[in-house]
Amino acid sequence: MVVSWNKDLFEFKVVASDGNARAGILKTPHGEIETPVYMPVGTLGTVKAVTHREVEEIGYKLILGNTYHLYLRPGLDVIREAGGLHNFISWKGALLTDSGGFQVFSLARKSGTAKVDITEEGVIFRDHLSGDLHLFTPEFVAYIEEVLGADIIMPLDVVVPYPTTYENAAEALERTIRWLDRFIKARTREDQALFGIVQGAFWKDLRRESALKTMDFDEYLFGYSIGGLSVGEKAEIMYEMTEVVTELLPWNKPRYLMGVGKPENIVESVERGVDMFDCVFPTRVARTGTLYTTYGKMNIGNRRFAKDFNPPDPECDCYTCRNYSRAYLRHLFNVDEITAYILNTIHNLSFYKRIMTQMREAIIRGEFQKWKKNFYEKYFSGKF
Amino acid sequence: MVVSWNKDLFEFKVVASDGNARAGILKTPHGEIETPVYMPVGTLGTVKAVTHREVEEIGYKLILGNTYHLYLRPGLDVIREAGGLHNFISWKGALLTDSGGFQVFSLARKSGTAKVDITEEGVIFRDHLSGDLHLFTPEFVAYIEEVLGADIIMPLDVVVPYPTTYENAAEALERTIRWLDRFIKARTREDQALFGIVQGAFWKDLRRESALKTMDFDEYLFGYSIGGLSVGEKAEIMYEMTEVVTELLPWNKPRYLMGVGKPENIVESVERGVDMFDCVFPTRVARTGTLYTTYGKMNIGNRRFAKDFNPPDPECDCYTCRNYSRAYLRHLFNVDEITAYILNTIHNLSFYKRIMTQMREAIIRGEFQKWKKNFYEKYFSGKF
Repeated sequence: MVVSWNKDLFEFKVVASDGNARAGILKTPHGEIETPVYMPVGTLGTVKAVTHREVEEIGYKLILGNTYHLYLRPGLDVIREAGGLHNFISWKGALLTDSGGFQVFSLARKSGTAKVDITEEGVIFRDHLSGDLHLFTPEFVAYIEEVLGADIIMPLDVVVPYPTTYENAAEALERTIRWLDRFIKARTREDQALFGIVQGAFWKDLRRESALKTMDFDEYLFGYSIGGLSVGEKAEIMYEMTEVVTELLPWNKPRYLMGVGKPENIVESVERGVDMFDCVFPTRVARTGTLYTTYGKMNIGNRRFAKDFNPPDPECDCYTCRNYSRAYLRHLFNVDEITAYILNTIHNLSFYKRIMTQMREAIIRGEFQKWKKNFYEKYFSGKF
Repeated sequence: MVVSWNKDLFEFKVVASDGNARAGILKTPHGEIETPVYMPVGTLGTVKAVTHREVEEIGYKLILGNTYHLYLRPGLDVIREAGGLHNFISWKGALLTDSGGFQVFSLARKSGTAKVDITEEGVIFRDHLSGDLHLFTPEFVAYIEEVLGADIIMPLDVVVPYPTTYENAAEALERTIRWLDRFIKARTREDQALFGIVQGAFWKDLRRESALKTMDFDEYLFGYSIGGLSVGEKAEIMYEMTEVVTELLPWNKPRYLMGVGKPENIVESVERGVDMFDCVFPTRVARTGTLYTTYGKMNIGNRRFAKDFNPPDPECDCYTCRNYSRAYLRHLFNVDEITAYILNTIHNLSFYKRIMTQMREAIIRGEFQKWKKNFYEKYFSGKF
């Protein structure tokens, strides 16, 4: 029997909408999540530079793990013996794992020694660490993700490079659909919920085709991901592609725009009907000294903050902003203290959380446009 | 008028003793501290890899800042304008600053381009960052430490290299006394409490001479430091030197063994009448994967912990031990996650805090020897 998802464990409800923007509730075996939601990236089983406690306190109840990375380190044996990823990393909230597809293509491309070979069977690649050869098939990735045991899982998809040709994109789209079929048939766990991934690169007709063909599997899909975006194309193109897809997708299922993005990307995509996001930006740029604030992006290492004893973001109530000044954070960053990464990360994750919460509330009030205008006015002012 | 310390703001009381070991209370303008106490090192205004909140939650109420490092970065201007070090770093507990003497000698020696010149006036050195030339005199260090505004301050002393000659040590001792006299005369703030530093390298007669000559300034000294130890000599020699000094020092004043040390060094020194310690070990080795546990030092990156789902230290109730397994910590450490440094540091600081608390309680019960025997039996067993 082909596995779907246990209806007692998972549920998604749109509780309010404003234009195409939606506010929802996502129920999982590890808690309920309010949408739209940004999911911090816990690549290797931890959100970088912060403890789980800090992630929870900021209000996050759903984080992401990367199948590719966890498969390589610590490896499946360890995680299986721990009783799955939740147990291994001691995370009490919900987890989502990707399929590794994106990493196989992106990390492999970046590494000089690595090479990717795509066949109908699967992807043969050399990993970015040892250069060892691996085969990921849809079935094997289903197996890996069942060992990891995340609440929400992604099927193996074919990610095309940017830029690419129409023919390549069309071919990858078709293969992604065939792989989805195989992935679904390989699944055995009803306590995990699968999303389909819409591909189609930067052509509207391919995006529509991909969405419709993915929706053929709707009874097995708890939600829909939009993949292959935010890979180098202009933001306007990303918004267009998102829009043609969300217009087609079933209203009552969550939509997840993978790997997106900057605050303004998220705002624009929420407006276009996306419910879920993940992105390494807030944590990654925290470690290079960028703080997202109400009044714009702040390079905390800048000399101008040397004697600025104001909090980084006067409208933020995170641990960092409640306790520390720009001058202190600048000092910590300039002397390479690990606490600089910690405090910057706490702030950026809090900023993302705050705008998600504000958007949700604005949608419920029916004032999304008003909120957006106000947010942009401040955010692009750079007046800190 | 020569400044001493405000008797309303500072007080030290020995509340119990067991042999030479003492349990005390150290009152400062920023809170009361139970002794014996280990002080985490916050070199550049932060304990490395942990937030103040974590340091406080573990139970620390007194941390150390390094005058040499803070003088260089962020520099006095910034800290003065912030209203002192407490304000600049937002630390609500008590602070102790060293004099920079140790760093001037140790970091200068380690740097190829740096050179130290000691004259009667002071120390001329090149810093380890830019190689710029600086002069530290006793008066200037008193000035710097008043800008920093720590509760407890150290005078500039002359630190001899290890090994050294009797003549060098004797000369450094005499100059340290003359500098103490100048330092005391340069002070202006009564809301800071000064310690004298006993030198004398590895000769008992010099240590005694140094202690007695320092005690000539007793009315200006809130406590006594023992300097120049733990610099490469055998532990037994360190204990001997400590003992001849604590035998002479006034019973009612706190004794601080600077830069010490490993858990067993601290235990032995508490037994010999020391009340205060600082050391970078617990935080530094945390970042290289060493955990101090009830059952000994654990190299968490070791393969044997790959599938060990026990907490690092079963007798520890710190955040790390309550929530995470050895296998998870090993994984985080092996993939270079910053959270490895965070969680290891939390644990090691908790371990140090716990043994200090246990020693204090044992002294109060009159069972220090029993506690020590029990501690050593487990700690040197390596049975984890």
